[in-house]
Amino acid sequence: MIKINKISTKPPSDLDKDKCKSKTESLAKKIGELQRIIYAEKKSSVLIIFQGLDASGKDGTTRHVLGECGIAGTDSYSFKKPTDDESAHDFLWRVHKMTPAKGMFMIFNRSHYEDVLIQRVHNWIDEDRVAVRMNAINAFEKLLHKDNDTLVLKFFLHISQEKQLEKLQERIDIPKKNWKHNPADWEEAKLYDKYMDAYEDVINRSELPWHIVPCDKRWYRDYFIASTIHDSLKALNPKLPHIKN
Amino acid sequence: MIKINKISTKPPSDLDKDKCKSKTESLAKKIGELQRIIYAEKKSSVLIIFQGLDASGKDGTTRHVLGECGIAGTDSYSFKKPTDDESAHDFLWRVHKMTPAKGMFMIFNRSHYEDVLIQRVHNWIDEDRVAVRMNAINAFEKLLHKDNDTLVLKFFLHISQEKQLEKLQERIDIPKKNWKHNPADWEEAKLYDKYMDAYEDVINRSELPWHIVPCDKRWYRDYFIASTIHDSLKALNPKLPHIKN
Repeated sequence: MIKINKISTKPPSDLDKDKCKSKTESLAKKIGELQRIIYAEKKSSVLIIFQGLDASGKDGTTRHVLGECGIAGTDSYSFKKPTDDESAHDFLWRVHKMTPAKGMFMIFNRSHYEDVLIQRVHNWIDEDRVAVRMNAINAFEKLLHKDNDTLVLKFFLHISQEKQLEKLQERIDIPKKNWKHNPADWEEAKLYDKYMDAYEDVINRSELPWHIVPCDKRWYRDYFIASTIHDSLKALNPKLPHIKN
Repeated sequence: MIKINKISTKPPSDLDKDKCKSKTESLAKKIGELQRIIYAEKKSSVLIIFQGLDASGKDGTTRHVLGECGIAGTDSYSFKKPTDDESAHDFLWRVHKMTPAKGMFMIFNRSHYEDVLIQRVHNWIDEDRVAVRMNAINAFEKLLHKDNDTLVLKFFLHISQEKQLEKLQERIDIPKKNWKHNPADWEEAKLYDKYMDAYEDVINRSELPWHIVPCDKRWYRDYFIASTIHDSLKALNPKLPHIKN
């Protein structure tokens, strides 16, 4: 059982920022190389899930860590408010459709976890429904893994409340970030503690493991995620297929 | 635990064929009326699954029992050999996409159960994979039911081996049935006993109940299925929405 408020949002003090940044760059290149082999091999697929509060860095991470992946073999999908048609189906309907085919990388910016996070923080669903959904999520992720050799990598982008507010404020103060400003994010930010409780519970009830990423410093966040993805891909031991003589 | 060879494929001896046929006709009309109310109400959805050997009557049943349903609110989907893209995903990927939205009826001619029937009878998957898939099926059907108020009605069209062979032969002998003749069906028919074992096991491991339909007589098969669907729809107690004054 994890306790989310015992997990730091800050980098370990002994790490050097510049070294980490250059390591991240080289890891991103290696991730790109591995992705190309997995694409050619078509034996497994990779689903990367980024969950976190507004301004926790989901977009930035995708750019810095997965930017060297090939476009043909890599898709990303950002889950927004469900459409009418999506709402007329079970919560996994729109998610299942987007899962990667063999050989493909799929990056989820938010995911099926919103259906047991935002919906719960706002009391749109009761605890019975949360239980139904957590059971379905565990079975769904196991299915992807066991029936289609999908590597499911889940990252919770853990950011402190001060840092979140600071980054939301930057979206107002810095002109090139203005396009990201959304007044509704400030309302959600007031629910910080409720979100942390919901994340903690969901992570503890989830069968496939989560990676909890300290996100107050962008350079450490990227380095942490790049290392994790790189090591997990390497463990798949992908091989370029060769024509046998 | 059911024992499939203890379950008759024949109608009870005290039933009158003509009475049953006229009851089926009137049940089919009532099913059409209930379908229209469910379509208008948009509170629940209905998934009807027909599983059975070749020539067990999946198409005929759809026509006789569901022929009065409205086209706008009723879809049917026939699962064939998976495409390359479908095979590059978990076995439920193509199935989940086709589940009904609120208000809709969906009829599956074959279904996700083929992935634990034909694939197993031919030893394309091992028993570990069957276990993975049965777990996923149970979680999937529960999700549809509990997260989207989908009524899932599953029918196994139970036909005797003699009757199956007789009906396959008709497809050769009767010109207007020739279009249904497929030499591959005769090969599959040789595996009758293996299929019965697989069906028995799958039905026993399935959490949502199955209806086992004696199918040697078309009139009884239709009557049995029409009664079951009718009673299940009635139990939903659908109501036409009215504007409140």
